[in-house]
Amino acid sequence: MTVPRVRIESLERHVGQRVEIAGWLQHARSSKHVHFLYVRDGSGVVQVVVAASDVPPALFDQAGGLPLETSLVVRGTVRRHPRRDELELGLDELDVVSRPVREYPISPKEHGVDFLMDHRHLWLRSRRQQAILRVRAEIVSAIREYFDSRGFVLVDAPILTPNACEGTSTLFETDYHGQKAYLTQSGQLYAEAAAMAFGRTYCFGPTFRAEKSKTRRHLAEFWMVEPEVAFMDLEGDIALAEDFLTNLVARVLDRRRAELGVLERDVAPLERIRPPFVRLRYEQALEILREAGQPVRFGDDLGGDEETVLSQRFDRPVVVTHYPMSLKAFYFKRDPSDPSRALNMDVLAPEGYGEVIGGGQREDDLAALEAAIEAHRLPRAAFEWYLDLRRYGSVPHAGFGLGVERTVAWICGLHHVRETIPFPRMLHRLAP
Amino acid sequence: MTVPRVRIESLERHVGQRVEIAGWLQHARSSKHVHFLYVRDGSGVVQVVVAASDVPPALFDQAGGLPLETSLVVRGTVRRHPRRDELELGLDELDVVSRPVREYPISPKEHGVDFLMDHRHLWLRSRRQQAILRVRAEIVSAIREYFDSRGFVLVDAPILTPNACEGTSTLFETDYHGQKAYLTQSGQLYAEAAAMAFGRTYCFGPTFRAEKSKTRRHLAEFWMVEPEVAFMDLEGDIALAEDFLTNLVARVLDRRRAELGVLERDVAPLERIRPPFVRLRYEQALEILREAGQPVRFGDDLGGDEETVLSQRFDRPVVVTHYPMSLKAFYFKRDPSDPSRALNMDVLAPEGYGEVIGGGQREDDLAALEAAIEAHRLPRAAFEWYLDLRRYGSVPHAGFGLGVERTVAWICGLHHVRETIPFPRMLHRLAP
Repeated sequence: MTVPRVRIESLERHVGQRVEIAGWLQHARSSKHVHFLYVRDGSGVVQVVVAASDVPPALFDQAGGLPLETSLVVRGTVRRHPRRDELELGLDELDVVSRPVREYPISPKEHGVDFLMDHRHLWLRSRRQQAILRVRAEIVSAIREYFDSRGFVLVDAPILTPNACEGTSTLFETDYHGQKAYLTQSGQLYAEAAAMAFGRTYCFGPTFRAEKSKTRRHLAEFWMVEPEVAFMDLEGDIALAEDFLTNLVARVLDRRRAELGVLERDVAPLERIRPPFVRLRYEQALEILREAGQPVRFGDDLGGDEETVLSQRFDRPVVVTHYPMSLKAFYFKRDPSDPSRALNMDVLAPEGYGEVIGGGQREDDLAALEAAIEAHRLPRAAFEWYLDLRRYGSVPHAGFGLGVERTVAWICGLHHVRETIPFPRMLHRLAP
Repeated sequence: MTVPRVRIESLERHVGQRVEIAGWLQHARSSKHVHFLYVRDGSGVVQVVVAASDVPPALFDQAGGLPLETSLVVRGTVRRHPRRDELELGLDELDVVSRPVREYPISPKEHGVDFLMDHRHLWLRSRRQQAILRVRAEIVSAIREYFDSRGFVLVDAPILTPNACEGTSTLFETDYHGQKAYLTQSGQLYAEAAAMAFGRTYCFGPTFRAEKSKTRRHLAEFWMVEPEVAFMDLEGDIALAEDFLTNLVARVLDRRRAELGVLERDVAPLERIRPPFVRLRYEQALEILREAGQPVRFGDDLGGDEETVLSQRFDRPVVVTHYPMSLKAFYFKRDPSDPSRALNMDVLAPEGYGEVIGGGQREDDLAALEAAIEAHRLPRAAFEWYLDLRRYGSVPHAGFGLGVERTVAWICGLHHVRETIPFPRMLHRLAP
């Protein structure tokens, strides 16, 4: 009779049965008469018990001498652990699929970050990295489900774009069949075109920044989701961001609590995430920063340090609005009651994590947008298509971008974004 | 009392009520005493009836003189159409949000493809393009749901890669802080690393080909989903592809039949898609091609023309397997019973659409893979990390890549892939 091949996550359905599991030896320990093999198959890890009293001596010896990351197929009976609330496998047969050619380079001892990053293709197998990437996958799935179920149509923005819209200093450039092309920094302008067609839309893909900065919050390649909604103003935008972010956190708490446990994430601060978020106008944010001893002046942008201070101050996310127009991109709509201010908003995650969302209402007046393009000394011709959106049926509209990696770092409680993406690309890191 | 703002898709819940709809004038027609305005809000199109007997003369005149793509807010009562099975709005109030500055460039008359592509940002608003992009969004959602619900963990592959693995002729190159980097052509090698960690994994993102070819099946930038599974062989890979593709088609038939109707897609061929697909070994495919008058010889690759012939021959997808190794990439596993052949498979969609899936079993033997890298004259150092996957716990594994745009073209019944992605990038097309 063939033994059924099962996944570790489904062992509960096979208690008392003989099954086969295919995977890798993640960890092992032995006493004189028993070997405990911890086998990972990607869906979980199971303790495989090899008892000297149950198996032939040759098999017992073989099981005790397997190096870490040996790939193997184990057969045996699924049973309840005598004391812990978990299942184990009582082994009776073992096939080694492939024995490592030498000792697995990642040992339980401490390794430096560079070493681990150089071995990222193997490091992914570790318990912590698996937990982080499962939370990431959950967040990506939650993002898509949130928008798909609310009438937002996914409209992918292009990665290769013809225009260096905001200067070439932070753009990756490539030769596109004789023409200069740049890797996108944001799909927003395209999402605006889609919003005029579909009303509610989002794009979600990788975006690029060729910044020379080397901070714990920056990657050269990162994923961003950007919803854009026609007939929505700044208030609606903030309400959408609040509901969306609350939903993401709740979904991870609901489905990935085990992984947060592996990461030793204190979930109490996450359980406090719900609307309304704290609202601060730019000048109120400055005041708090000054009280905290930061030497900020009106007109200064809020950088990483300022965000850290603000987001440590409250136990809920903070929405900072109405920045001076001088700090913001050309496409923001001016506040009608004070045209020196933008109808923008940044959402800062609490616990010092800082900006995870940036967005606002877009300029929908043709003449005002033309003037902004000129004032920013941008190449007008490159924006003719974008101006068309104001020529033909312009409407008030707003949207935002959420950075996936910063969100993963916050929810997982990680200091640095480098572990939040499978293969990070940073200033000095392009491999593996 | 405030009138509730509603979406057209939810009008059924408001029959008999006074509501407000915000959108764009997609089309209009008039008789002497009544104007019919077809208003699009992104969730649908509704017929708005402006009767001379119901509204003041000034409003009646205004409603009759609105140019296409005027953005507007209409208010009135939701009622059933007197004859057709649909809802309409009896207008009593109208606010024009923005009047086009000149005539909308896309008229109901015929336009050339270049003109439409130059106006892609507006063309998205048309009925056909909306239908195609909604089918695309449905397919993307179905892909993710398929894998997420079957224990596949999403592990995003990087876009920027350090190595020109298969020659630089079809790669887009960029300067990465002083180092050469290339835009990915496939996430497969990274997916293999992830499969050794997660057992079942997939990556899904944009991929790039700097090909000079200008065919109806090629884009410079296209989206690809790539599942990869540990402990799976070619047979398992084919079974996964069959189940997956069948599931995608069924999902679109289930949820996007209205859109397929707009596209005048004959759904009968789609309803026949179910396992098992037709299986052909490479030499059987050659025989069929020769019978059809194609002058193919053993060792020839199957190009677009050959795929068209094969995929017109059967009413189900065709799986072509066991190509000569000389035609395939270095990472394919050789057939143990005939080492001149690859354990590969291509899935050709029927009705002449051709390849939508390519994949197979990967070489899992360290020495064989090292020899293949040498035989293909690839830079060994660049593959050390990939070889590590065979050094530490190698297992049989397989996977495939499905091209989203070709799948959308097939399911929508489109001749060319250029309409299957919001902003296509082709040999001579980088804008808007």
